[in-house]
Amino acid sequence: MLTRMDVIQDFWSSLEARDWERFGATVAADVTATWPQSRERVHGRDALIRFMAEFPGDWHLTLDEVHADDTGGATRISFTVDGETVPGVTFFGTDHGLIASIVEFWPEPYEPPPGREHLLERY
Amino acid sequence: MLTRMDVIQDFWSSLEARDWERFGATVAADVTATWPQSRERVHGRDALIRFMAEFPGDWHLTLDEVHADDTGGATRISFTVDGETVPGVTFFGTDHGLIASIVEFWPEPYEPPPGREHLLERY
Repeated sequence: MLTRMDVIQDFWSSLEARDWERFGATVAADVTATWPQSRERVHGRDALIRFMAEFPGDWHLTLDEVHADDTGGATRISFTVDGETVPGVTFFGTDHGLIASIVEFWPEPYEPPPGREHLLERY
Repeated sequence: MLTRMDVIQDFWSSLEARDWERFGATVAADVTATWPQSRERVHGRDALIRFMAEFPGDWHLTLDEVHADDTGGATRISFTVDGETVPGVTFFGTDHGLIASIVEFWPEPYEPPPGREHLLERY
């Protein structure tokens, strides 16, 4: 029996491996994936596999942080494509041990607002 | 004994309440808070309390999703200030039951890239 932690880690490792059979086994048939920043949504395992398989570029990912509990979990990844690496943040809801909902964010760099330099350091 | 889930939920509820004593009790004395998008960092409980207490505007937050496990957890919040609501994503690392590291993201809206309309719906 796979734990939720196993399923979430398998989601990413099978995606990096382009192992669509193993990837498909981590998600429910009626999984939904949502990207709130662009207000995009994919419904269903087959559509999600196709979305991932068609994603352009020679992309690679590494899993930086993962948490999992009784209701799902969350991860931070580093996603590299065309020599550029960006962070990705993903929340997972699980149902009967499979990933049933995905909510994903791609945060972009921004300049810090003025007036808080005395409280912060830059790195 | 507070669970990690309790501590993370207290972090947000005490912040919304501006209860700095309760807020301070959720984090380690040497907590670090990092915002990778702006490459900003705060070191220490006192500096973090001051950063939060001085944050401008009549802001409010609601906790939308939380996960917690043996090493920490992650949350999604809705943060409202000046009539605008934006999502915030936060990862927590815990040590001896207190929050020792915070990594936070503020994802902004973006236009979906072309060429994947056949796989997605907008909402």
